[in-house]
Amino acid sequence: MAPLSDLRALCFDVFGTVVDWRSGVVAEGRALAARLARPGLQLDWAAFADDWRAGYAPALDEVRHGRLPWTTVDMLHRRILERLLAARGITLAEAEAAAFNRVWHRLPPWPDSVAGLARLKARWPVCTLSNGDLRLLLDMARHAALPWDLLLSAELFGHYKPDREVYLGACRLLALPPGEVLMVAAHPSDLRGARAAGLRTAYVRRPLEHGPGSAPPAYAPGEFDLVADDFLDLAQQLGA
Amino acid sequence: MAPLSDLRALCFDVFGTVVDWRSGVVAEGRALAARLARPGLQLDWAAFADDWRAGYAPALDEVRHGRLPWTTVDMLHRRILERLLAARGITLAEAEAAAFNRVWHRLPPWPDSVAGLARLKARWPVCTLSNGDLRLLLDMARHAALPWDLLLSAELFGHYKPDREVYLGACRLLALPPGEVLMVAAHPSDLRGARAAGLRTAYVRRPLEHGPGSAPPAYAPGEFDLVADDFLDLAQQLGA
Repeated sequence: MAPLSDLRALCFDVFGTVVDWRSGVVAEGRALAARLARPGLQLDWAAFADDWRAGYAPALDEVRHGRLPWTTVDMLHRRILERLLAARGITLAEAEAAAFNRVWHRLPPWPDSVAGLARLKARWPVCTLSNGDLRLLLDMARHAALPWDLLLSAELFGHYKPDREVYLGACRLLALPPGEVLMVAAHPSDLRGARAAGLRTAYVRRPLEHGPGSAPPAYAPGEFDLVADDFLDLAQQLGA
Repeated sequence: MAPLSDLRALCFDVFGTVVDWRSGVVAEGRALAARLARPGLQLDWAAFADDWRAGYAPALDEVRHGRLPWTTVDMLHRRILERLLAARGITLAEAEAAAFNRVWHRLPPWPDSVAGLARLKARWPVCTLSNGDLRLLLDMARHAALPWDLLLSAELFGHYKPDREVYLGACRLLALPPGEVLMVAAHPSDLRGARAAGLRTAYVRRPLEHGPGSAPPAYAPGEFDLVADDFLDLAQQLGA
């Protein structure tokens, strides 16, 4: 494994890597069901969260492959939500649906995220590099007290990860060669995109992203520069 | 004066409004002169700082009016620096000139800036909206501990302030109508651009920006929504 002594900035995937979307959606789904007291809403919110998330990558791919014009993640989440609600025979008032859709702006961090980012930030700039819109990342950072130095979003590049343009666009705005930027993610596909663009890569295990007992993503030994159990372990391995 | 109860985000000009470029350039110029111990460098660094800054708006205008292709503020600062050094018969090694040019990344905040931003941030997102590059704003924020929620730069829009595209681009990324965004600046020309684009405006007096005894910029009574003495006064007036 190459040394990482020449790092100048860290870029983080967000959904699943920094925040726990599943717990966030489950908690707000249950709260919605309790508040509206409508029978259709008494459902398995963990399965609903998983279905919502499962619709996300295919929706991004529709944009990535030109079958949809540029569409924000807020809009993509809303399209998937409408489909999931319709399939379950649930109707929500526009204001309720819009508010519930913004649950992705209010997700809880993993227990180590804030402390880990703070520790890493003492040494390097910590930046998002997310497919989420800047507005979403801004709301999330304020909600979860995430100490970002810089919010970077696919929105700025008109491409979604793992398109090469996103990783190279981030390096251009950081004014750094890709080899001095570390991409941190819980998803091998994201890291493979980053690696192909010349960035360094750190895979962080998030075994609860898809719920207890879910299978971890597959990757080859040595495929990434670092493998860490959480952000504190990442800081430790990087000597921060 | 209209009430500002519907504000959703604050955008700040940076050079002169948040940081004291004159003191920063003077301090680093003197340190450079002491370090290099070359006679040509024993100059009036306050006048040098004023000259460097005076070259800035015309350089931006060259880009704004299409006489120069898009050029980063780092590059514009460097062009002006080279001209000022040449006029004084000073030659610097490339590494010295490049390092001195980055003084704009390391400017000190005004005494109220950090505390004022922290107080305003408790209520609204606080964002830069600067002609400075993102990399410059990132370095400056880390150097001066400026607690920004979001860095927005003219660089993202391919236009420099006071071009309308910058203000409207910021509102688009914030997903807010211009009337819910407050532009904060020590420069009437910036605020006039913001106002023309539909933003609310707050003028902050920075009487030392151009040194003690310099004339304050002229503006008409009632031209801006608010006039404040510093960021703490601004917070007070906004009820934050």
